[in-house]
Amino acid sequence: MSGKEALQVQTLAEIPYLKIHGRTTGALAPVTLFWTGSAIEMNVRASELWIEVESGYDQYESWVSILINGVPVSRQMLTAGRYWICVFRGMNRDAVKNIRIVKEVQAMSGDPGCYLQFHAVKTYGDFLPVEAKPFKVEFIGDSITSGEGVIGAQAEEDWIPAWFSGVHNYTAMTAEAVDAEYRVISQSGWGVLTSWDNNPQGNIPGIYGQICGLLSGTRNEALGAQNEHDFSSWQPDVVVVNLGTNDDGAFHSPEWQDEVTGQIYKQRLNDDGTYHEADLAAFEAAVTKFLGKLRHYNNNAHIVWAYGMLGIPLMPAIHRAVDAYIKATGDKKVSVFQLPNTTSETAGARSHPGLMAHKQTAQELSGYIKSLLIGS
Amino acid sequence: MSGKEALQVQTLAEIPYLKIHGRTTGALAPVTLFWTGSAIEMNVRASELWIEVESGYDQYESWVSILINGVPVSRQMLTAGRYWICVFRGMNRDAVKNIRIVKEVQAMSGDPGCYLQFHAVKTYGDFLPVEAKPFKVEFIGDSITSGEGVIGAQAEEDWIPAWFSGVHNYTAMTAEAVDAEYRVISQSGWGVLTSWDNNPQGNIPGIYGQICGLLSGTRNEALGAQNEHDFSSWQPDVVVVNLGTNDDGAFHSPEWQDEVTGQIYKQRLNDDGTYHEADLAAFEAAVTKFLGKLRHYNNNAHIVWAYGMLGIPLMPAIHRAVDAYIKATGDKKVSVFQLPNTTSETAGARSHPGLMAHKQTAQELSGYIKSLLIGS
Amino acid sequence: MSGKEALQVQTLAEIPYLKIHGRTTGALAPVTLFWTGSAIEMNVRASELWIEVESGYDQYESWVSILINGVPVSRQMLTAGRYWICVFRGMNRDAVKNIRIVKEVQAMSGDPGCYLQFHAVKTYGDFLPVEAKPFKVEFIGDSITSGEGVIGAQAEEDWIPAWFSGVHNYTAMTAEAVDAEYRVISQSGWGVLTSWDNNPQGNIPGIYGQICGLLSGTRNEALGAQNEHDFSSWQPDVVVVNLGTNDDGAFHSPEWQDEVTGQIYKQRLNDDGTYHEADLAAFEAAVTKFLGKLRHYNNNAHIVWAYGMLGIPLMPAIHRAVDAYIKATGDKKVSVFQLPNTTSETAGARSHPGLMAHKQTAQELSGYIKSLLIGS
Amino acid sequence: MSGKEALQVQTLAEIPYLKIHGRTTGALAPVTLFWTGSAIEMNVRASELWIEVESGYDQYESWVSILINGVPVSRQMLTAGRYWICVFRGMNRDAVKNIRIVKEVQAMSGDPGCYLQFHAVKTYGDFLPVEAKPFKVEFIGDSITSGEGVIGAQAEEDWIPAWFSGVHNYTAMTAEAVDAEYRVISQSGWGVLTSWDNNPQGNIPGIYGQICGLLSGTRNEALGAQNEHDFSSWQPDVVVVNLGTNDDGAFHSPEWQDEVTGQIYKQRLNDDGTYHEADLAAFEAAVTKFLGKLRHYNNNAHIVWAYGMLGIPLMPAIHRAVDAYIKATGDKKVSVFQLPNTTSETAGARSHPGLMAHKQTAQELSGYIKSLLIGS
Repeated sequence: MSGKEALQVQTLAEIPYLKIHGRTTGALAPVTLFWTGSAIEMNVRASELWIEVESGYDQYESWVSILINGVPVSRQMLTAGRYWICVFRGMNRDAVKNIRIVKEVQAMSGDPGCYLQFHAVKTYGDFLPVEAKPFKVEFIGDSITSGEGVIGAQAEEDWIPAWFSGVHNYTAMTAEAVDAEYRVISQSGWGVLTSWDNNPQGNIPGIYGQICGLLSGTRNEALGAQNEHDFSSWQPDVVVVNLGTNDDGAFHSPEWQDEVTGQIYKQRLNDDGTYHEADLAAFEAAVTKFLGKLRHYNNNAHIVWAYGMLGIPLMPAIHRAVDAYIKATGDKKVSVFQLPNTTSETAGARSHPGLMAHKQTAQELSGYIKSLLIGS
Repeated sequence: MSGKEALQVQTLAEIPYLKIHGRTTGALAPVTLFWTGSAIEMNVRASELWIEVESGYDQYESWVSILINGVPVSRQMLTAGRYWICVFRGMNRDAVKNIRIVKEVQAMSGDPGCYLQFHAVKTYGDFLPVEAKPFKVEFIGDSITSGEGVIGAQAEEDWIPAWFSGVHNYTAMTAEAVDAEYRVISQSGWGVLTSWDNNPQGNIPGIYGQICGLLSGTRNEALGAQNEHDFSSWQPDVVVVNLGTNDDGAFHSPEWQDEVTGQIYKQRLNDDGTYHEADLAAFEAAVTKFLGKLRHYNNNAHIVWAYGMLGIPLMPAIHRAVDAYIKATGDKKVSVFQLPNTTSETAGARSHPGLMAHKQTAQELSGYIKSLLIGS
Repeated sequence: MSGKEALQVQTLAEIPYLKIHGRTTGALAPVTLFWTGSAIEMNVRASELWIEVESGYDQYESWVSILINGVPVSRQMLTAGRYWICVFRGMNRDAVKNIRIVKEVQAMSGDPGCYLQFHAVKTYGDFLPVEAKPFKVEFIGDSITSGEGVIGAQAEEDWIPAWFSGVHNYTAMTAEAVDAEYRVISQSGWGVLTSWDNNPQGNIPGIYGQICGLLSGTRNEALGAQNEHDFSSWQPDVVVVNLGTNDDGAFHSPEWQDEVTGQIYKQRLNDDGTYHEADLAAFEAAVTKFLGKLRHYNNNAHIVWAYGMLGIPLMPAIHRAVDAYIKATGDKKVSVFQLPNTTSETAGARSHPGLMAHKQTAQELSGYIKSLLIGS
Repeated sequence: MSGKEALQVQTLAEIPYLKIHGRTTGALAPVTLFWTGSAIEMNVRASELWIEVESGYDQYESWVSILINGVPVSRQMLTAGRYWICVFRGMNRDAVKNIRIVKEVQAMSGDPGCYLQFHAVKTYGDFLPVEAKPFKVEFIGDSITSGEGVIGAQAEEDWIPAWFSGVHNYTAMTAEAVDAEYRVISQSGWGVLTSWDNNPQGNIPGIYGQICGLLSGTRNEALGAQNEHDFSSWQPDVVVVNLGTNDDGAFHSPEWQDEVTGQIYKQRLNDDGTYHEADLAAFEAAVTKFLGKLRHYNNNAHIVWAYGMLGIPLMPAIHRAVDAYIKATGDKKVSVFQLPNTTSETAGARSHPGLMAHKQTAQELSGYIKSLLIGS
């Protein structure tokens, strides 16, 4: 077994067959990962591998999980700085390992200082092609899709990156069940029309066309987060949209005032507790419009609006909006799928779906997606 | 939220209510953890906590898992050096967190350079008492008890620390189920009489009286690993001995030659594949003798010989040996308990019990231990 | 223990506290049960109990299950004739047993000769009041709700009563989970608008107002099956409608010709496999109209359209129809709930949901119903 | 579909390929079934099948389960008399059905009047060969092996046949898992040495050599129950002995007095609650002796003493006894296997193992048996 002195540093741009999961600018020096579930993947024949990461933040740090041959082996917080992490060591030099280093935490719209980059690897082995999966699935959602609450005790209440996971959530499990490569576009608290607190900026459609448009600040701008995303580079077979939970929250939350314009935003309830008609219509219009945007960018994908892990109050409105879209466009590859509700037994931290709830959702959703993929 | 500049460093000797799991010398500057499942535990009221670790090795590195309020949140390799790890940050400053930092990897008899230490914490909060559990359980075993193969794909074959876990194995699960504090004394490949390859040094009884007597080398000696353990400091209610699997292996493995004396050691099989009578008797004598040693050190504990996660070929011999011990001593608090066998569905990496096998064992073993504890 | 000679015969009209489940005419001499899940229930303090049944049929025989203290103990075919069945014997004479004798098979629209009656009991004990459950739930559906395929090997293809169960299906399990008394109105092959083979007579709404209007023939007429049902006698808290699966089937089945009028009926597909617009509209109109009928008869019930155990192709249409009903009426106690799909692992006989599928549905549906009942 | 008039009666002696499970005299006119799990099996190509049963008892009635193509379809009490039961009707006349009619209740040592016979079948189809299973397993035991408590609510306390099942217990499940034909020799309350109440007649070894030697009375004698069993007719690959639970009970129960001789029998405990040495030795001697008898009759079978579903207090004694037998005979095909204990979650009626406990036992025991069969 050779010592560390033999390890050679290669930048990510230098190594062959590097596979990057998740939207990026394409830059390799370094590779910046934005969204949860984003990852770098490689097949390497070596006994030891290190990776040089760079992590920064004002408030919310990044976490990564390392998968060896498809199985999560380590999961750790990445404190600020640029440094080397050992991915594996002491293994059989002649065996090829499939390595995936996965961002466990969502893009942080609330922390312009948060970023995660990979610069280089250190090894003395060689790299081999990573086999492509037969399908591609994109997941769009909020905290549920960000895996918030999958980690941690049920009693936890702090909003911190530690409770998020991109590996132990329904997106990763569903993708594995249907043998698909996947991407996640998600943000805690956001909706189709507004965020849970009626902020009209907190909507996913508004930033969907950009690489990671919800990130602000000069560094993120320089990293290309707000650049237009090149959709031709990755066309999914299925797009799953798991939004609506925070749009319902907005009806039950106080108004939001724009500090600049002074304008007030509020999704209203009637006195009897039902949704205010005009405000509900605004939500539906946002759903319909987003479907058009999704189709614009994803020409052949099945679009599945999947909703229900924390209840189904907006399900009728979602059906109406999807119906309206289909009627207006004739687009037949759009459907709605109800997800199983979280129970006290399946809940995780912060009153969010826990590991068991994500497993149950993955089981039912993957069955539905398989039926779509077989039919297509 | 205060910045890092406010964090204050305190050595472990300075902080109140620090709880240490696992055998140690009692030294706090630094604290050295030897065995898998060893841990430092604290209740801290703060928004942020760092811990200063020191890790060294020639070959086999250490890993730790961090539990917050009883739930595993991170798990990482500790590469060589002395450095700070962030345990948590950004949490509610007024809430008390229970923190356990657990050694995931067994004491490494094969690597005299391997050690793991904790020097200090960095926080600005205060420390509170850790509530004591009503029971204490000690587990003694081999690779199974070290959690070898709990992590990793079934196809993995390398013998590396990454595949071990002290948190995701039956010892931790059983202890939790019976509400007990626990310690683990275990070593891959070792047995009661010899190791799997007939090495007579590879026996747990020989080192049981020392703090961690299977560690060699001058550093470990200086750290006190070979010191006599003070058994009065921690008297278990139950001692579980899960040994025998490697003693059976010795019958099926080539002879071992002592390089110094030239002496050859071999547990023999008869031509018909049955155990050679004298060699089997030697195994039984070793079991009987070990029970005497266990009782010598643990006056009131129920001693449970638990065996079967990888088959039960030596079960008759174990029963005979336990019987002989009871007959000779009149000791009535010794019993034998069969553990459920691992199947292809419940196996983990390296042909060892996987997570499901450990869960099944914990369920059955904890039921048995509860019946002992209720009766006592 | 007393012998049989001491047993005394009492007609059902004579015994106090007899509880009858399911729609009946109120006649007690004898009691006729029509629908699956219908039952006679009694609390009896005795060591032995017999019941006198009368069963008749031209083709499809009846089956019953006997539950003692809530647990199914026997299940048997009732061949033609009038005879005594022993419910229990040899039990403690002083203990009160709760007894339920449940019809396992649906009302048989295809066999005018099929009927099931109970005449008398034989015992020497006394009868006590049956405690009322806090809630009432009515289930309306097709073969799925009739429990077709819950019994039998997956390979079974014959359409026979043996494969049906009113006890081991989601209606009984859901009712138990929400602590409700329940009734079932269901018929294999039937829909909201037509049956699976486009027969416009095969629709549940058309017979909903009668006690058991799908039964024909002079005997059934004499038994009062076609009488108007007295809805004031039993007002459910929740009505679950699990219809639509056969309405979808009609789109994929050959036309149906009325033998009398010569008229042809067919729900059409477009050339591209989508539903023909006008025919789909007819289905939706039928759903909307049925909701009005359900509300007419059940003033305060939550009405839940539950659909999905064999796929969700008509879900958008169901949502549109429910929406149209709500918009037209302002009725807010109507909602749609998607049921989990059956998989190859959870399927039963005759390509229908099996026991596992019914358990999964009961778990999810009962969670939803609880949320409605708590809110009301 | 033909009517009943076409059905033809054939005695069991007349039909070809009839397979009988369980020890019988070989008499076919009629067939008498003695033990639980005994059955008549046939492959029949017909649309309808009836069977003529004859049932008698003074106290404890018989029950049967009917399996169609391997799946339990009906289960019913057989009240006294000779009459026809319909096994199936209305099925596809051209399909072959595998039919098994299984005795659900143990041989009743306490009721000399209890018997169950099958006289004839009524059908218009033909009979085909029943495929043989590759293995044969015999189970010997007490109430656990009789499936007592598998049926019924946990609160049930009456000792009645209704709570027994030969189909829903670990013997049937284990046999299915290892693809074996099976027989059961079992009796509630009995042991190896004495019954639970110290009656020395209540021991299985004493009647093992007879067809069903625990049945008394002139009718049973005439039926051949006390005849010597012809062991050459059915040699098992594995014999599972699940005895000891009632032998332990005897130590904790009052003495038993022989009404004829006045002799008193009592397995004693010492003052400290441990087993009295001489009495424990008597138990061990009984185990050892029974093993000799089992081997005498079953030359090549693996003999497995399986124990533990209601605790393991006698496990050390069982191991000693098995050891003594092996040492005395050199017989190497004898072993001990611990069964998983019943918990409050897995218990059934009458404080006995419930369905879940039997499933768990079958899973572990079948794994062990497979390892024996593969090795042989």
